[in-house]
Amino acid sequence: MIDSKHLLELHEIQEAERMAQRVAVIDMGSNSFRLVVFEYVPGVSFKEVDEVRENPRLSEGMAEMPVMRQSAIDRGVRAAQIYAAYCRASGIDDIICVGTSAIRDAENRSRFLQRVQDEAGLAVRVLSGEEEAYYAYLAAANSMTLRDGLVLNLGGGSLEIVRVEDRRSVEATSLPLGAVRMTEAFLTGDPPTSKQIEKLTEHVQTELAQLDWFRGRSGMQMIGQGGTLRLIARLVQKRNDYPLDILHGFEVADAQIESVRKELAKLSVSARTKLAGMKPDRADISLGGLIVMQEAMHVAGFDKMTICVQGLREGLFYERFLGDGAAKNVTPLLEDVRRESVMNLAHNYRYQEHHAQHIAMLTLSMFDQIPQAFSACKEGDRELLWAASILHDIGMTIDYHDHHKHGAYLILNDALPGFSQPEVALIALMVRYHRKGNPTLDEFAPLFEHEDEHRLLQMAALLRLAEQLDRSRDGAARAIELRMTADSAIIKVTFRGDEQVLVWAAQNHRDVFEQAFGMPLEIVAVPET
Amino acid sequence: MIDSKHLLELHEIQEAERMAQRVAVIDMGSNSFRLVVFEYVPGVSFKEVDEVRENPRLSEGMAEMPVMRQSAIDRGVRAAQIYAAYCRASGIDDIICVGTSAIRDAENRSRFLQRVQDEAGLAVRVLSGEEEAYYAYLAAANSMTLRDGLVLNLGGGSLEIVRVEDRRSVEATSLPLGAVRMTEAFLTGDPPTSKQIEKLTEHVQTELAQLDWFRGRSGMQMIGQGGTLRLIARLVQKRNDYPLDILHGFEVADAQIESVRKELAKLSVSARTKLAGMKPDRADISLGGLIVMQEAMHVAGFDKMTICVQGLREGLFYERFLGDGAAKNVTPLLEDVRRESVMNLAHNYRYQEHHAQHIAMLTLSMFDQIPQAFSACKEGDRELLWAASILHDIGMTIDYHDHHKHGAYLILNDALPGFSQPEVALIALMVRYHRKGNPTLDEFAPLFEHEDEHRLLQMAALLRLAEQLDRSRDGAARAIELRMTADSAIIKVTFRGDEQVLVWAAQNHRDVFEQAFGMPLEIVAVPET
Repeated sequence: MIDSKHLLELHEIQEAERMAQRVAVIDMGSNSFRLVVFEYVPGVSFKEVDEVRENPRLSEGMAEMPVMRQSAIDRGVRAAQIYAAYCRASGIDDIICVGTSAIRDAENRSRFLQRVQDEAGLAVRVLSGEEEAYYAYLAAANSMTLRDGLVLNLGGGSLEIVRVEDRRSVEATSLPLGAVRMTEAFLTGDPPTSKQIEKLTEHVQTELAQLDWFRGRSGMQMIGQGGTLRLIARLVQKRNDYPLDILHGFEVADAQIESVRKELAKLSVSARTKLAGMKPDRADISLGGLIVMQEAMHVAGFDKMTICVQGLREGLFYERFLGDGAAKNVTPLLEDVRRESVMNLAHNYRYQEHHAQHIAMLTLSMFDQIPQAFSACKEGDRELLWAASILHDIGMTIDYHDHHKHGAYLILNDALPGFSQPEVALIALMVRYHRKGNPTLDEFAPLFEHEDEHRLLQMAALLRLAEQLDRSRDGAARAIELRMTADSAIIKVTFRGDEQVLVWAAQNHRDVFEQAFGMPLEIVAVPET
Repeated sequence: MIDSKHLLELHEIQEAERMAQRVAVIDMGSNSFRLVVFEYVPGVSFKEVDEVRENPRLSEGMAEMPVMRQSAIDRGVRAAQIYAAYCRASGIDDIICVGTSAIRDAENRSRFLQRVQDEAGLAVRVLSGEEEAYYAYLAAANSMTLRDGLVLNLGGGSLEIVRVEDRRSVEATSLPLGAVRMTEAFLTGDPPTSKQIEKLTEHVQTELAQLDWFRGRSGMQMIGQGGTLRLIARLVQKRNDYPLDILHGFEVADAQIESVRKELAKLSVSARTKLAGMKPDRADISLGGLIVMQEAMHVAGFDKMTICVQGLREGLFYERFLGDGAAKNVTPLLEDVRRESVMNLAHNYRYQEHHAQHIAMLTLSMFDQIPQAFSACKEGDRELLWAASILHDIGMTIDYHDHHKHGAYLILNDALPGFSQPEVALIALMVRYHRKGNPTLDEFAPLFEHEDEHRLLQMAALLRLAEQLDRSRDGAARAIELRMTADSAIIKVTFRGDEQVLVWAAQNHRDVFEQAFGMPLEIVAVPET
């Protein structure tokens, strides 16, 4: 027999799944076409469920003359037919299909668009440079903690730039500085000569210097999107034995980019493919793209950049997911990116809402009652503890045994958009140690200071104790009073119903708390009146 | 919009979840009590969803006199109350509660049983030694590929032995040779003297020699269950940098046990706790338990033993899951353990049945048409390829991106009961490489011969090609004809509906096939007539 509470949650989940929708976003770029399928419950949760790639190289030869070649058109139409056939076969009839710089710039684009309509049945919306920049911005603003900054999205043909103030796009443009375009126009040697590199550098500087709003100021971030950025991040991580396998949210410093630039500049394209982390199909354009991004940093006055792995396709999706408020002049933004990331992950792994929310209530109640003098925690840690509380059991999706380890695996894999990488690691470690083991940062040591060990230990101790106080998942522990003196701590638990399990379980797990706060802990249970 | 096929599968899954039941199995052992909760759909799938442990040390002092001490009874009743409160709070009202050797052997057991009934509301079924052995056998027979063999389950108080012929239990007994009992009776020194060890060895040999049916013969396996066995396996794996973190199905050789025995015999209990892989609460009884098992191997004439991590609790659960056929004199056995393992994992991760079964049809069809002369595969590989086909997409539960890696993670974590560990690794690697990457055994090299690389490559190539032939998951590829000559291969795909996606996708993924079979591949599609 399943208890009614459990049934209710299952029912809610099933109801939500019945409402799941699918949308295919097709992005016809200058070099590659991508089809991405999102499955989502509007406003609740979403995930990517398929991706199809093809490289019809639409812009081939367009450097000489702004028209699409016949062979490029044929390849593009063929790819469109395959994407359309895929959608039909998969039963997806909601399709968002957009074209970017190659199509936009081609004088014969109407011929291509007509053929795609006639032969593939797809209506392509050709985005202006400003629109393309807007969707790049939507992706960044909905997947990063971003208030003020510059968002740059580097494609094959163009570079989109958005200036963001108070989460809103205030300036946006698109410049013909794409990685393929710049490589073809300037870096024709293999390896390129230093003269060629110098010319490209000057060109980028000149173009960007004309944008008077393209300047950073204190408190602003620079966000970078696009395949070149992901590649730079990967190369930097490999060189430094970076302990996380996450690109989203990775901060890359000017000095690190400079060191990659020097190495790439020395190497031929075929020699570059042997570098750890290199993507062979990007080896040729990697240096050109890197130079564009690094010069942009210099012109705008930044010494680091944060990677955003989302872009145009996700931006288009967010508009669908959050509702297009264009008519009401409302930008489709998640209210709180970090909170939504946690809830999205929780929903995708079918978390037990009652238990998870109850654990969050218990941990935060204890956290708030710890006197400043005994706390090793930093500002902002309360939110991390909340996130770990909500997510602590998601590993149950995989297996009961070792579900603490599985939960950490799932969190690290998701990367929790909006949190910094050390924050993600800390949340994952709290989950890792919520049932057993001695909490330690060892695995991710390079991301932390020695003193952070104590933060982790205290937060993991609270989570572990809370988990035991709801060991039978019935919410019997209604409230907690915590008193700490110089040499001892008492927790008074007000309970409803039966206190036997929670007292027994919490008594058995006092040790981590006692170690974390350096004092003995007494647990007293009193019935709710 | 979700297509009707997708809806149907979701509907079936939801229907099955509505039928999910929960049962708590409580095992009151000599040293520890365990409560395990299984969630299951009768006859379809099951998983463990919670576990509660407590060590009331019921048999404390029973070596001197076969009565439970008052303090032991109090601890046991207290633990029973907590378990009962846990079940009430969790809404579980189906409880199977059994007692084993300590309760069975205690002359005052009725007093304990009455108090457990009165104060915890639990009715304890006291198992006879033969019944305890029977459930150990049910666990082994439903989680191993076992036709003929000896199953040994070593507890704190007793050692259960079952002789299995043609999957049936033909002899069963329980002997008072438990690890705690033997340690207390013989190994009183710390470390024990060689004289003490010798006495224990002789005692075990004498006791076992009296069982005339306790002898192995060719074609028989020895299966070992219990905490001591898991500990020995863990110690051996740590010493040898074993590449898998799986105990179930691990084969441990007499020479490896001997080497652990020599080391443990030299060390005091506190020194043993520092060994890599040691469980501190088992350090004291580890040597005694090891000696019992090793001598059992010697007496029965085996030079290796296979670890089974299941035991009494799982045996009791299988009876519930498969239906108690006692009245009809039918033993509750899974018809095909290996097949059920694969299907159980597939169900637990909500596999897409239509797509997975279609992929299995396509891979096996190709596999069967490969001429012997071109095949690197061994007998039995067909079943491994089938398993990988059914499981290839289960990683989608975690995330679309890298779902090939997630799938391998889930398979290795589950350990697929019934398959040998190298087989599990091979299935995981096929899934790992079903979309991208160069198939390699490197990660698990110590488990394989060099020639196995070629097996993996061929099977991964077939799986990858099949996946592309159903790229849009609509089953358009109805049948495959494969022709191979000395220098080329042709695949003729008979399709229904639209062949564009499958031809495009398969053409793009011919390379691994061409590498695996050393010849170019041509793909031709013809419409179904």
